This record gives sequence, structure tokens and C-alpha cells, in this order.
Amino acid sequence: MKKILVANRGEIAIRIMRSAREMGIATVAVFSAADRLALHVQYADEAVYIGEAASNLSYLSIENIINACKATHADAVHPGYGFLSENPTFAKALQEAGIKLIGPSSEAMEIMGNKLSAKEAALRYNIPMIKGTKKPIRDIEEAKVQAEEIGFPILIKAAAGGGGKGMRIVKTQSEFKEELKSAISEAKSAFGDDSVFLERYIASPKHIEIQVLADEHGNVIHLFERECSIQRRHQKVIEEAPSPTLDAKIREEMGACAINVARSCNYVGAGTVEFIMDSDHNFYFLEMNTRLQVEHPITEMITGVDLVKEQIKIARGEVLALRQEDLSIHGHAIELRIYAEDPANNFFPDSGILKTYKLPEGPGVRVDNAYEAGMEISVYYDPMIAKLVVWAATREEAIQRMKRAIDEYQITGIESTLAFGKFVMDHPVFQKGSYTTNFVDSYFNTRTISPNNEEEAKVAAIIASHIFSKELHETLTEPKTVSSNWKRNRVN
Amino acid sequence: MKKILVANRGEIAIRIMRSAREMGIATVAVFSAADRLALHVQYADEAVYIGEAASNLSYLSIENIINACKATHADAVHPGYGFLSENPTFAKALQEAGIKLIGPSSEAMEIMGNKLSAKEAALRYNIPMIKGTKKPIRDIEEAKVQAEEIGFPILIKAAAGGGGKGMRIVKTQSEFKEELKSAISEAKSAFGDDSVFLERYIASPKHIEIQVLADEHGNVIHLFERECSIQRRHQKVIEEAPSPTLDAKIREEMGACAINVARSCNYVGAGTVEFIMDSDHNFYFLEMNTRLQVEHPITEMITGVDLVKEQIKIARGEVLALRQEDLSIHGHAIELRIYAEDPANNFFPDSGILKTYKLPEGPGVRVDNAYEAGMEISVYYDPMIAKLVVWAATREEAIQRMKRAIDEYQITGIESTLAFGKFVMDHPVFQKGSYTTNFVDSYFNTRTISPNNEEEAKVAAIIASHIFSKELHETLTEPKTVSSNWKRNRVN
Repeated sequence: MKKILVANRGEIAIRIMRSAREMGIATVAVFSAADRLALHVQYADEAVYIGEAASNLSYLSIENIINACKATHADAVHPGYGFLSENPTFAKALQEAGIKLIGPSSEAMEIMGNKLSAKEAALRYNIPMIKGTKKPIRDIEEAKVQAEEIGFPILIKAAAGGGGKGMRIVKTQSEFKEELKSAISEAKSAFGDDSVFLERYIASPKHIEIQVLADEHGNVIHLFERECSIQRRHQKVIEEAPSPTLDAKIREEMGACAINVARSCNYVGAGTVEFIMDSDHNFYFLEMNTRLQVEHPITEMITGVDLVKEQIKIARGEVLALRQEDLSIHGHAIELRIYAEDPANNFFPDSGILKTYKLPEGPGVRVDNAYEAGMEISVYYDPMIAKLVVWAATREEAIQRMKRAIDEYQITGIESTLAFGKFVMDHPVFQKGSYTTNFVDSYFNTRTISPNNEEEAKVAAIIASHIFSKELHETLTEPKTVSSNWKRNRVN
Repeated sequence: MKKILVANRGEIAIRIMRSAREMGIATVAVFSAADRLALHVQYADEAVYIGEAASNLSYLSIENIINACKATHADAVHPGYGFLSENPTFAKALQEAGIKLIGPSSEAMEIMGNKLSAKEAALRYNIPMIKGTKKPIRDIEEAKVQAEEIGFPILIKAAAGGGGKGMRIVKTQSEFKEELKSAISEAKSAFGDDSVFLERYIASPKHIEIQVLADEHGNVIHLFERECSIQRRHQKVIEEAPSPTLDAKIREEMGACAINVARSCNYVGAGTVEFIMDSDHNFYFLEMNTRLQVEHPITEMITGVDLVKEQIKIARGEVLALRQEDLSIHGHAIELRIYAEDPANNFFPDSGILKTYKLPEGPGVRVDNAYEAGMEISVYYDPMIAKLVVWAATREEAIQRMKRAIDEYQITGIESTLAFGKFVMDHPVFQKGSYTTNFVDSYFNTRTISPNNEEEAKVAAIIASHIFSKELHETLTEPKTVSSNWKRNRVN
């Protein structure tokens, strides 16, 4: 493997190229019309234009990406996350073109890409499942009987769904029929597949996932868990590893289950097996993500393993050098996704120019970033600007470090999730570790944080520089003090 | 301890404030006329002007710093490294003013501040010493006899010296008398103390040091070694931990010796015991630094211990929570000091405006930094701009990561040690780990690296943007590639 084309953009494209570069492998970036000045283009050894700004004309165009591989003689593709990363058609097209995909087989993607076939595969290994139907609903009257057996509240889910789309919570039998009909029609229009199924609804779960690595030679290991229960709109925004809830026994059980889920689809590569956990610490298989996860850095920080390098080694056909018994959890890591979103306005995506953009630095801070001051956050793609990741010896210290890093992070020109991150770090329910996926709905309201106030910061800067200048003419016997608390309190 | 005044500047002032902030302790910066816009001033909760640019009027002025403490009601001082950090008079003055010094007692500083009294203290614990004289030379004829007994080549050292100043290597008896006289007179003028002594000269040693932590309750632990043999002008520029040379047995012996050296002066706080090691792996006590070391981050990265937080806890009178048996080495760390110096011109200090200044980011990279683009590197102080620190699971991977990080680091406007760092990482003798303090003299010459070429970079950037623009009008079926190798090769 001499040259890897990264079929992605933003921070994950750069993150992948960093590992490739450290391994002495050349890198190719692809870019849309909106990304011609993007940092991932600057970072790569070569860059290829692949189409208009809209994703379907560029980052989702299998043809354009394969043409870019051929033009640059790239012998492998890393798909990152999102875009084509879990697309079996892309995996097959690469195989036909003789280009190695750094990821699992198209068969594994297909099995795990459908929630029902994923459950069917996992059931062969006795993985704990939430009570529910195993086949798509075909008959509404039969479904009513099944719903009664499962017991309300019930969750209707689209088999091809993801990211919370096409889901319905049904509290009573009286609403069931209508909600089912509307879920079926939404699934059809959103995913082109009207398969839906029923599950017992777990009201206030934790979202806990296990990182796995599997080589072509049948070796499968897990790299412990990540807890991802801090979500808005069913999407993760803060993750931590290890989970404050898991004890060694559950961790081992969950890890063993995750390995078996990987085995159930002959998985090869880095993957993530997601579980939900109820308040009695029972856990249930949710789904498997057949790609590198956004939140993979927190696992890297507690294990010392570079997951992208492991992906590349696996794709080269190497035997996993890591053995389960050699792995252990070292300290604690937390990730805050820095989204261009306005938490005070229901996390509505923001776009525009980053007027000020300064990253935190120093001990235990890692930023996987794709922007510089003056760059534009485009409307075309996911509004994630960067991932702020901290590591410390203990969870308590990691929380303090995250707060310090948030204070150092300076963003003006667009709204961001920085202040939301601070709100979470300061919240006693988060600090206690007992939070669930309902955290945002239960505790966060727009009055708890105030948006960036650029004018205030400017005035304070002017005052501060004035005081400094003035002080230069004071005598040394009477030193004056200058408060820079405005800076520290910027995101209170 | 509610408020810490940091009696220092640059990266170390910010590094200390970061830990204080994470512990919920307020911070006070001090600044000279040259530093009124410095980042450490912006970072602190309060800032106090302490005098003109020249160090003796500001950062070395005990009176001004104590006045700054009083004016801000700071109840503790962290001295960082350099400046007043090992000054017993400062330690005493703080004690008299009722302000806690985050550091050892003035007595420990005095014992270890003089190489002869340090040796005398350490000898009581049977620490291995280089053959040499135990008292200052008073009689030249007697010294000639002593020199003959020790055997040539001989090193003449100033008892009060440091950083290589006042040292003489004497190869034969015929040169001895003249060199001794000149060393005595240089010691007197440089340190106000004409005490010199003799030591057997070890031609090509390794410099290996042990980090220790000692609390007020008699607990002393060590945090393994750092190897600091890559030096120019007898001053460290690249350090790594662990040393590629030490095995577990020598590490344990050296660690035990370091703990005893700390005990020999009733040491309290974080300190470093320096040893030199000959080609047969015999090691000898060199000196003890009674302060936080520049290169402390590599120890933090392999142990997970925040040394500044430990210093603060010790100064608060707490019992060390870390036990020797709980500590272990996790992975490998390397530090490159980014100096404003021209390696092609014998590392001559450079000053001026940082035109371009971009830090590396991503996995395993920590930069302890004090500058931003547009800021000035002053002629008044140590020319260190930042410390680039990398961590990886193995030494080989750490070297690759350091090279990647150096490639990402962008500095124009001044010369720096970046390209020198790459030269060292690429050198087989460094990669093998067999290097000694003679590495720079033996292998580095100015033709091996070329200075930054800003014009070349500018032209390449213009060409690249031109090609990008052009490509936007190409059809998708024929993607063009853009080489950005110019960027990668910037510091070859």
C-alpha cells in the first residue's frame, strides 16, 4: 500500500492522512467546489477535484472518486465516516476496480446496514436483545397483537434507518395503528425501504458502545467502551471513555458480546458495536457501525492505540499485533464535538466565516480540527468544525481539563457547542456519571447559556491594552493589576 | 492556596497557569515592558507590570515580584525554571513575606546549587561519582598532583557553574596549569565565586536524568528517566523518555540513587537528578536541579502524572498520592525545543517577527507554546518559542510522529530548530538510540539542512491555488492532481 486516497473531507480526512504520513504512505485528498481551499486539501500530497459542492455530486459520487483513484494511482481508499463509508455498492465498485477499501467487506456492511438482518446475525451468538419483532411488519392486525405481547411503550423503527430517522414512540394501543402507518410511509420515503419493526421502548437508557478490531485471520479484540449518552436530536455531542457506569464485570461481558457481533458478520477492520443500557444495567444490542467512529479518539487516548494505523495494517493483510490481554484502560478521556450550531436555538446549524478561531493547547488536550480563522463553515456538509478531546489520569481531572480547554478555545463569527460543553461539564448529573440519553431534554434550556458576545470581548480587549500601556508609565513600587476575567468568563 | 503568582514568562508561565486553572486556583502573571502583549499575560486572571525589559529589572527583581504578590494578595509563587527558580535568597524573601514558594527549601537549593556541596551531600548515600577532587582547588602545585592521580583527560569545573559555563577540558599535564588559572578567573567573573574542582573527563557520555517528587512527610518517589544527550553548546535541545539505552535493572538502580540524592538534602517538591553514563553503562551523579525542568512534559506523557499539579499539592502540604509501585512507563515521548536559532549558523539566536506561525495538531502531539503569528521574539530572553512534544506507543512510532509534527509546524520570519529536529529524527545514530552528547559535533553540519525558503513556499502556494482554480473548470472525467510536496519538504 503506497498511496491512500481519503474519500472524505474535514477533520477526519486530515486525521487519516496524519496516520498515513507517519507510516510513510502517500495521501490523496478529494475536494468539492466548496472545499478547494480546505485544510485537508492543503495537507495531502495530492488533491483531486471531484465535483460540485452538493455531496451527491462530489463526496457521494462513486464514479468520481474511483476516477480520482485511477488518475492518482492510489491503491487504497479510506472512506472515513459518513458519506460512502458504509455503502456496500462503493465497496463492490472499489473491489472491481482493484482498489483496496480500508474497511470491512460489502457483505458485512450489508448485514449490519439493516437493523433486522443485523439482529438476525447477532442472535446466533445469543447477544442480549430488546424484546421485539424479528421480521418486517407486513400485517397491521398481526402487529397489534405483537405490540400487546411486547408491552407498551413501544418503539417503531425503520430497518434501514439511522440517526433517529423514521422512529416512533407509541405509548398506547389506541395510537398504535396510526403511528405504524405513518412510520411505514416515512421509512419508504426516507430510505426507499418500508420495512419497520417493533421494539420495547426503553425510556431513559445509556448509550454505550464497544470498539472492536478484527483482522483477516480470524483475530478479534475489543478496546473497551465509550459512553455516548449526551445527545441532541438522537445524535452524539459529548462522549467519554471509560463509561462512569460500567464495572469490570459488565465491561467484560459487553466486550465479549461485541466480539461475537463482529464474528457474526465475519467482520474485518475497525468497527463499533452499540448497546443501550437500562437503569438496572441490563444491556441490549442496538447496531454495529461498520467504519471508524467520529468519537474514536477517546479510545485512542485511553488505550494508546492509533486506530487508523490499525485499520491500515489490517487492510494490508497483517495479523493483529495487539492481544486482548495486553490492552488496559489508562486514565480517562472526554470528547466534545465542536459543531457550528446554536445551542440556544435548539442546536440549529450555523454557517459563515470564522472571525476568531484559536485552539486550546497544553497538557492532555488534542484537537482534531479542519479550520483556521477566516475560513468559511459551509452550508453543504455536516456542521462539525472540530473535535476537542482531553485526557487526564482521572475522570474528575478530565472534566476540569475539558473546562479549561473550552475556556481557551476562541470562536467568533459563528455559534458553536463550546458553551454547551461547559454547561454539561458543570452539571452535577454529568459529574455524577448517572446521565442518560435524556440529559439534554431534561436539564438543558436555552437560558442556561448565553451566546458569544463579540462586542463585549472587543471592549474588554481595548480596556485591557489601555491599562497595560498605562501601567508601563507607573512606578514599580505600586504595581497595578489587570483583570482578564472577561476572557475566562466568555463562555459561562 | 487560592491564588498563585507565576514569576516567569513564556510557555512555562502558561503551562503552570493551565494546571492551576484546572485546580480552581486563580493566577497572576508578571510582565516586563517587552512582554506587555505576551500570551502569558493574556492567559492569567490578573497581570502585574514588574519592570523594564532587561531581566535584572523585572523577572530577576525579587523586590518587584514580592511587591506584585502583595498587591494581588497572591498566597503562593511558582517560579518556573530559570530566572529566580533556584535562588535561595528569593526563597528566603518569600518565606519572610509569608508567601509560599512552590519549590524546595532555600537550604536544599543552597546545597544543590554548589556542585561540591551537592557531591558532599550525595556521597553520604554512596551515590556513584566520577573520580575527582572533593574540595575547591586552593594550591596549584597540589592540584597538579591530584590531576595526575585522577588521570587525563581532566575536566575543570566551576563549583557554582551551570550550563557549561566555566568548564575546561584538559588533555595533558602540560596544558593543565594555564587552563586551571584561566578557569579560576572565569569562574570568579562569571559566578562571583572562584571555586573550581577537577573531575575525570568522560569523553562521550549520555546525559540521563531522573524526575523525583518528594512531599513534606518524607515520601520520595521517582518517575523514571529522561535522556537528554542531544545538546548544542552543552544545552539540551531534544529529550526523550524512556531512554533507549537503560534496561530495567539500571533504571531501578538509577531511580534509587536519585531518591537518595533527594533525601540527602531533605528535598521537598519536584526535582531532577542528573547523571552521566559512559559507554560501559556506568553512571555517575552530575547535579540536582531544584525546580521543574524544561523537559518535564515527556515524563508527564509516559506516566500520566501532571507534575505541576503534584508540585502544587506538595506545596499545600499534602501527602503524595502516588506510590512508586503504582507508576509505570506507558509508551514513548520525545520533545524538540523550538528555539529561535539558526542551526546553519552554529545555533546563533535569532529575533524578529513571527510572520507565519502554525502549530501541529492531532493524535499524540502536545505543544507548550507562548507565541502567535505576528508576535515578536525578543532579544531580551531565552530564545525558546515553544516545546513540541509527541507521544506514541513505541519509540519508532514516536520518531515518525515527531517528523510528521515538524512537517506540520510552520514558522517563517525567524530561523528555528525545526529542521534540525528533522535531521536528528532521520539520523541512523539517533534512530538506533546509541547517540551521546557528542552527537551534534560528530554528525551535524550546516550543509545537512537548508534554512526556510519563504520565497519558494510563496511561489508554490501561488501555483497550487492557480491549479486549483483551473481544475474547477475541468470536466470530472479527467481529474487533475496537485502536488503539495513543497509543503511536506519545507524543512528537509
